[in-house]
Amino acid sequence: MPGQNKHYNLSLHNDAMRILILGIDGYIGWPLALHLLERGHEVSGVDSFYTRKRVREVGSDSAIPIMSMERRIESLKEMSGHKLSFIRGDVSNPRIIYDAIKEFKPDCTVHLAEQRSAPYSMIGLKQATETLQKNMIGTVNLAYAIKDMNPGCHILKLGTMGEYGTPNIDIPEGFFEVEYRGRKDTLPFPRNAGSWYHWSKVHDSNNLMFANNVWKIPVTDVMQGVVYGTSTEEIDRFSSPTRFDIDEVWGTALNRFCAQAVGDMPITPYGKGGQTRGFLSLTDSIQCLTIAAEKPPEKGEYRVFNQFDEYYSVNQLAETVKNSYEHLTGKPARIEHVENPRIEKEAHYYRPDMIKLRNLGYRPSRSLETEILKILSDLSKHKSRIDKLKNCIMPKTFWAKSSGI
Amino acid sequence: MPGQNKHYNLSLHNDAMRILILGIDGYIGWPLALHLLERGHEVSGVDSFYTRKRVREVGSDSAIPIMSMERRIESLKEMSGHKLSFIRGDVSNPRIIYDAIKEFKPDCTVHLAEQRSAPYSMIGLKQATETLQKNMIGTVNLAYAIKDMNPGCHILKLGTMGEYGTPNIDIPEGFFEVEYRGRKDTLPFPRNAGSWYHWSKVHDSNNLMFANNVWKIPVTDVMQGVVYGTSTEEIDRFSSPTRFDIDEVWGTALNRFCAQAVGDMPITPYGKGGQTRGFLSLTDSIQCLTIAAEKPPEKGEYRVFNQFDEYYSVNQLAETVKNSYEHLTGKPARIEHVENPRIEKEAHYYRPDMIKLRNLGYRPSRSLETEILKILSDLSKHKSRIDKLKNCIMPKTFWAKSSGI
Repeated sequence: MPGQNKHYNLSLHNDAMRILILGIDGYIGWPLALHLLERGHEVSGVDSFYTRKRVREVGSDSAIPIMSMERRIESLKEMSGHKLSFIRGDVSNPRIIYDAIKEFKPDCTVHLAEQRSAPYSMIGLKQATETLQKNMIGTVNLAYAIKDMNPGCHILKLGTMGEYGTPNIDIPEGFFEVEYRGRKDTLPFPRNAGSWYHWSKVHDSNNLMFANNVWKIPVTDVMQGVVYGTSTEEIDRFSSPTRFDIDEVWGTALNRFCAQAVGDMPITPYGKGGQTRGFLSLTDSIQCLTIAAEKPPEKGEYRVFNQFDEYYSVNQLAETVKNSYEHLTGKPARIEHVENPRIEKEAHYYRPDMIKLRNLGYRPSRSLETEILKILSDLSKHKSRIDKLKNCIMPKTFWAKSSGI
Repeated sequence: MPGQNKHYNLSLHNDAMRILILGIDGYIGWPLALHLLERGHEVSGVDSFYTRKRVREVGSDSAIPIMSMERRIESLKEMSGHKLSFIRGDVSNPRIIYDAIKEFKPDCTVHLAEQRSAPYSMIGLKQATETLQKNMIGTVNLAYAIKDMNPGCHILKLGTMGEYGTPNIDIPEGFFEVEYRGRKDTLPFPRNAGSWYHWSKVHDSNNLMFANNVWKIPVTDVMQGVVYGTSTEEIDRFSSPTRFDIDEVWGTALNRFCAQAVGDMPITPYGKGGQTRGFLSLTDSIQCLTIAAEKPPEKGEYRVFNQFDEYYSVNQLAETVKNSYEHLTGKPARIEHVENPRIEKEAHYYRPDMIKLRNLGYRPSRSLETEILKILSDLSKHKSRIDKLKNCIMPKTFWAKSSGI
């Protein structure tokens, strides 16, 4: 129900916003739409079903079955009374974005409509250029559409903590004060990404920073950690699941580990497993994005949020999944390290800031342990699907072997 | 003649290299080819004649007439005996690069084949996306082609000093040691560019740094200042001019100022004219690129060179052109500031390093004053062409007004 989260309140009659979600069919897009509708906002969405298509192409599927968008919208109306307007289209076509912005006149556009898999981008040249072009062009199209059609509209863009890489110093939120040879300036924190996908997000951040600089479009650039979880309150309440990918291309390490445990496979961290990243639950990712939308930047402001709860190493994730699975089922689970298909540091310093969202009222509401139990329990209901997807889980996409033409 | 420059010597029989120039038809590509041939290297080139086409499209032309590539090659053979192999094609088509690398097996590939105009990239969304895509895809294609076809080949990539923007601290060469909250790391220096074109170069730098990181391709990333000059020793000796653009889209400030003086127009700095940039002569740009090619990076090394002689403000350039013109002709020239079509700081700190190329033996061989006299004298021979191009010189492309669809 609106206003139920004590950390951020919305007075419906005064503050309801028009929010456009690009990529509304995705893992985050769909539950974000449900949550924003519940908070009294008007929501419109765009999607090309790109992820559904590309996941099928690698022989995989969402481990948790999802409805078609048509059914999603109908079912949502039945279960909650909420109406959602939807346009099928690809944001790399500027006409699609211009029309959506012109017609819906959003106060905020949440941009999630990107190719979002690092392994996909590393399969080969075709996928690399597709990722780099698609993500960049969609974002630039959006900037122009906002400038031309609705200049005050806030762009809330999903980036990734992976843009920063793993420097041997603390990671601030976007910018830092540098002292160098006796002089000072506040500069963008250097990015150093680990896949074409992650670099495409850096390019997007840079392009949006420039669009803000030239046209004063208000931008929130979210450096998001890895999101985990199968559900949110609204997903459960409206019986409207979001996708959950477990294959080597489209699933995250934690997703794969949970599927491996449920599917009686060994849990396989890549390499030594000391790789450390920021994480947060799906519910909390959506809490953060909602706060960012409801508390927009100042006029002409470009702001960067780091968005995660905690950082964990891959080994910590594997251990937690193993222990949770054993606790839940009484059956043993096994961890087996495999060759790392990626090129990345396997032991490193990692200390990113996460201050700005907390200052806006964000409070973590879920713990890794609870969410893993929920994931394992949800996946167990679909064990036969996981058994069918077994061949998709172990790494086939190796950074060093990315194929040419 | 080979070896005539006392600062870098080439022993022909032992050290002659196979050098592929992507963008060989351009302002720098052509004289670089002439110089490398003179130094005994084998040279092959690729070009799509993109610049010729796009310059015509804005109603402009090279102020100094240039030959077709066919005639260039024939005439070069007549005048010098040098043979040059050429492939017409666009590097955004991976097949073109793969074939060129496979057939020619270069020791070094000089990548100049990019859309290189900041104003062009700011005309509107179409030009923005064309620039971002074209430049990025060509560079990524090249990285894959080298990895697959000729992994030891050195990529010598032309970037721009404009990638750094104008920070309030010194600008190192690519990387700097940061101390932050008591810890240290050596990180890429933050980039902060001022047009889609300049950002496309940042994206290229980032993508090449990643390609080097994953596949160990040796890369020299050249952050080049603004190049000025109409001629090199080889251009003069072989009567084979290179293009020289003076219009608002394709010409640099200095080119425009010289054309304005010769064409009896006021010299028009943008805004207050305190904008400061690094500059070097065409002859010295080619000296630098030759040194970078002949002294390649270590195996697996990614290195960044800042490449310029001196920095000047726009006002200093305008004054020097005015004084040189008056000295040369005895006629008065006039400076008239106009509204700045760009969005940039008009007074700022500027102190970039330029150490690495000097350490490899580079010594500036031309001064701004001498080169401006030569430019003015060369342009005077084509005054009637400049008169015809008068309408193309004043700014029409405004950053704030970049058009949408």
